Amino acid sequence: MHSSINRRSVLKASLFAGLAGSVMPLSTSGFAQSDARAAIRAAALANREQDIRRIQDWIRLPSIAAEDLNMPEGAEYMAELARSAGFSDVEIVPTDGHPGVFGYMDNGAARTLGIYFMYDVKQFDASEWRSPPTTADFVDVDGWGRAIMGRGAVNQKGPEATFLAALHAMKRAGVTPPVNIALICEGEEEIGSPNFKQVATKPNVLSALKKCEGIFIPASWQGANGEVSLNMGSKGIIELELVASGENWGRGPKGDIHSSLKAMVDSPVWRLVHALNTLVTPDGNTVAIEGWFENVRALSERERELINTAAAASDEAQRKTSLGVTHWIDDLPYNEALQRLAQEPTVNIEGLVAGYTGPGGKTVLPGKAVAKLDLRLVPNQTRAEAERKLRAHLDAEGFADVEMNVSGGYDPTEIAEDSRLVQAQLAAYKAMGVTANLNPRLAGSWPGAVFTAPPVSIPAGHFGIGHGTGAHAPNEYYLIDSTNPKVAGLTDATMGYAEILFQLANVR
Amino acid sequence: MHSSINRRSVLKASLFAGLAGSVMPLSTSGFAQSDARAAIRAAALANREQDIRRIQDWIRLPSIAAEDLNMPEGAEYMAELARSAGFSDVEIVPTDGHPGVFGYMDNGAARTLGIYFMYDVKQFDASEWRSPPTTADFVDVDGWGRAIMGRGAVNQKGPEATFLAALHAMKRAGVTPPVNIALICEGEEEIGSPNFKQVATKPNVLSALKKCEGIFIPASWQGANGEVSLNMGSKGIIELELVASGENWGRGPKGDIHSSLKAMVDSPVWRLVHALNTLVTPDGNTVAIEGWFENVRALSERERELINTAAAASDEAQRKTSLGVTHWIDDLPYNEALQRLAQEPTVNIEGLVAGYTGPGGKTVLPGKAVAKLDLRLVPNQTRAEAERKLRAHLDAEGFADVEMNVSGGYDPTEIAEDSRLVQAQLAAYKAMGVTANLNPRLAGSWPGAVFTAPPVSIPAGHFGIGHGTGAHAPNEYYLIDSTNPKVAGLTDATMGYAEILFQLANVR
Repeated sequence: MHSSINRRSVLKASLFAGLAGSVMPLSTSGFAQSDARAAIRAAALANREQDIRRIQDWIRLPSIAAEDLNMPEGAEYMAELARSAGFSDVEIVPTDGHPGVFGYMDNGAARTLGIYFMYDVKQFDASEWRSPPTTADFVDVDGWGRAIMGRGAVNQKGPEATFLAALHAMKRAGVTPPVNIALICEGEEEIGSPNFKQVATKPNVLSALKKCEGIFIPASWQGANGEVSLNMGSKGIIELELVASGENWGRGPKGDIHSSLKAMVDSPVWRLVHALNTLVTPDGNTVAIEGWFENVRALSERERELINTAAAASDEAQRKTSLGVTHWIDDLPYNEALQRLAQEPTVNIEGLVAGYTGPGGKTVLPGKAVAKLDLRLVPNQTRAEAERKLRAHLDAEGFADVEMNVSGGYDPTEIAEDSRLVQAQLAAYKAMGVTANLNPRLAGSWPGAVFTAPPVSIPAGHFGIGHGTGAHAPNEYYLIDSTNPKVAGLTDATMGYAEILFQLANVR
Repeated sequence: MHSSINRRSVLKASLFAGLAGSVMPLSTSGFAQSDARAAIRAAALANREQDIRRIQDWIRLPSIAAEDLNMPEGAEYMAELARSAGFSDVEIVPTDGHPGVFGYMDNGAARTLGIYFMYDVKQFDASEWRSPPTTADFVDVDGWGRAIMGRGAVNQKGPEATFLAALHAMKRAGVTPPVNIALICEGEEEIGSPNFKQVATKPNVLSALKKCEGIFIPASWQGANGEVSLNMGSKGIIELELVASGENWGRGPKGDIHSSLKAMVDSPVWRLVHALNTLVTPDGNTVAIEGWFENVRALSERERELINTAAAASDEAQRKTSLGVTHWIDDLPYNEALQRLAQEPTVNIEGLVAGYTGPGGKTVLPGKAVAKLDLRLVPNQTRAEAERKLRAHLDAEGFADVEMNVSGGYDPTEIAEDSRLVQAQLAAYKAMGVTANLNPRLAGSWPGAVFTAPPVSIPAGHFGIGHGTGAHAPNEYYLIDSTNPKVAGLTDATMGYAEILFQLANVR
């Protein structure tokens, strides 16, 4: 069956070639693409058990950079996953922190696609989960279907393993991927990618990346109506701790002392509270750091239009329910809330830790207080600028002693709508009948700036269908068997990754 | 040797009797008091091993009300300690919380002394201790001597067990205590004594307490110069949690969500920070709650004089070193800092807990944030008034949704300088050659108001010599063998409790 020719797909391919102004070679080993797709689907179905086990086994080896848990093991495992999927010259790339992994798949194609993987996952507290976070058991998720639950299921091992499943299926089907693939992986995404640039700028890696049309991280974010967002950029982030301490302040106690002494001894906890209080407006929603908006580019008319379209196409009530939220900031209508999501830089308190944190009370005057913050940045803010301004603000407000310990972060990114990466994604979604909302900017952050900024300078984004949720939260899952006909399960999501390879090969 | 008569002590006793305007019976079973003292000291030395073991064994059974740890066991243990020291009709007194213990020792005396014990201890984190907090091992403390280290060593099991040691020594010496003793104990002191009034107002307990000249808790707070404070009152306290949550606010998330959503979702953590920020002035040192100072009585001229005297007699540098503090609030001189300690009501943050509190970061927008506060109150504030005003303040500032969960507390106390309890203490310290600084008000808090307020209405305070430190902190210890000739070790501290019994029997 692999030898039959489907006229329509040949025509379609020619059409695309014509649009591009030149004939693109089809890297499908002699099969027309629709036949190739059928063969790949059949192979994916045949591989299904091993594809599921690949996700589960990977979740069962949690690599957590913040806790230095299974990091060398995670890199080795990542390298083995790459080799097994057909990447050659797979290497573990040492950094000043935890290692990255690089592999290349030369398919003799004219174009090259970059793929970015993270092999680390976020920390978890097993007691908060309905199913253990590292056993990767199947659970039924109301309204969605049967899913694998575990830390990293959707962020990002499930989608990444599904991308690998597409390569395994193509291999089994005897279909050579129509583009070359450069795979670059890191193990420090969840701590702000402090050393990832070292991986991307290693000479052979840089050279491979620079050949790419663009790069994406596999992602599975279909909503209940099957819609996806096509992100044309993402916010940047800085993660840091602000620390007020008697030690550094020279006032208050160095350690915890009896709380009755508050009447004669200053409190580093109150100092932290007052320092924090200067960072945002009283509603907690607008950054009040001096000069913060100086380089913020307002959303364009086109960007606002795109967001309004996306808002209209998505299910606000469902989203509110899934987030446990009843009102957006300022009771904004959904489209304006989504505009705010895209355009507003934020200062968020991830965590507060001071003094006694157990059950009941303990009458101490603590010697130290810590706020864990993440700051989201928008174009044209930069991480360096933001760090400098936060420090200057604290100093100017009289909090020079409040320490600022930055653990990681990256700049915001932008991709041109007319780039091949975006156009190939649009074509792939269209071919699959998936509504793709062009999203000017992902509110989440990822180290895309490593790719979009010099010296790599290629478009970078997210791509994939399928569904999962619970990133950074308990009960994270990745859908395997979808009961919603609009939403892809594992096999359709696998086919999505085959589709993007074909589209990138062919797009104008 | 118990039968010899010391003329001088008889004269002295007569002198005291004469001052009182009537002849007080000496309850020393036929011995003159100085002979009685010598016999008691000899007995205390003979009992030394068991007196030390009593302290250690008690520390090895930590009862922590906040953690519901060993509470019935602690009450049983307390009752057995009382029985063994000679109290009769010892009963465990149930409450709505953890039980109290009551015992009475009828010595056929004219006067009765109340003794208050707490059998609970503060929580601890064993990892912060240089010697394990529940093994009660001996450690050497630079400049002080050989001490027992453990949770509760000085707060309050060491001093309390030393009081019991005095009763054991008197029994062994054949000396009947010269006053009757009512012993009342609770197990919830460290959580603010929420149910202690139920113990004190049980009819038979109340009846015994009302007969008392006064009541004290044994305490061992000698400074490096041997000085003690004689507290004529103490601050009150309220312990509570302020909780901001999406659940209660109706804004923000109900649970933790991804922090990128901060741009469109309100943050309960920022809400808590801003609510806290309204409670005190920007330096964290003056309460800014509406009407807080309305009923605050300023220190009298006499009280300020007493504090200045105490400041001059104590070692400021040593105190700063032991607290790990280099400056008092506003760089006040020591006497003014101590005045502030006595007169200023405080709002202290014992602990902050929100979102992710582990190592590194975790990009969540938390659904809930908690501040653990203790509020210290001065005469004539009351706990009820303070709770009402804090709630009203939060409501008025727009934080009606911020929950206020009070876990316990009590009113401030005051004792008249001319009360028999104070005068007996002064006489006892003088007899022992100990400098006693009359302290208008202890900055720490204790449930003394249960005794000073109706229906009990008796003077209540602290008494004892000896030394220890580290209450509510790691490395708490209680001195056994003093290397400082000005500071009492175990035997002298034991004799101090015998002395106060004699003095209370004799004082005018």
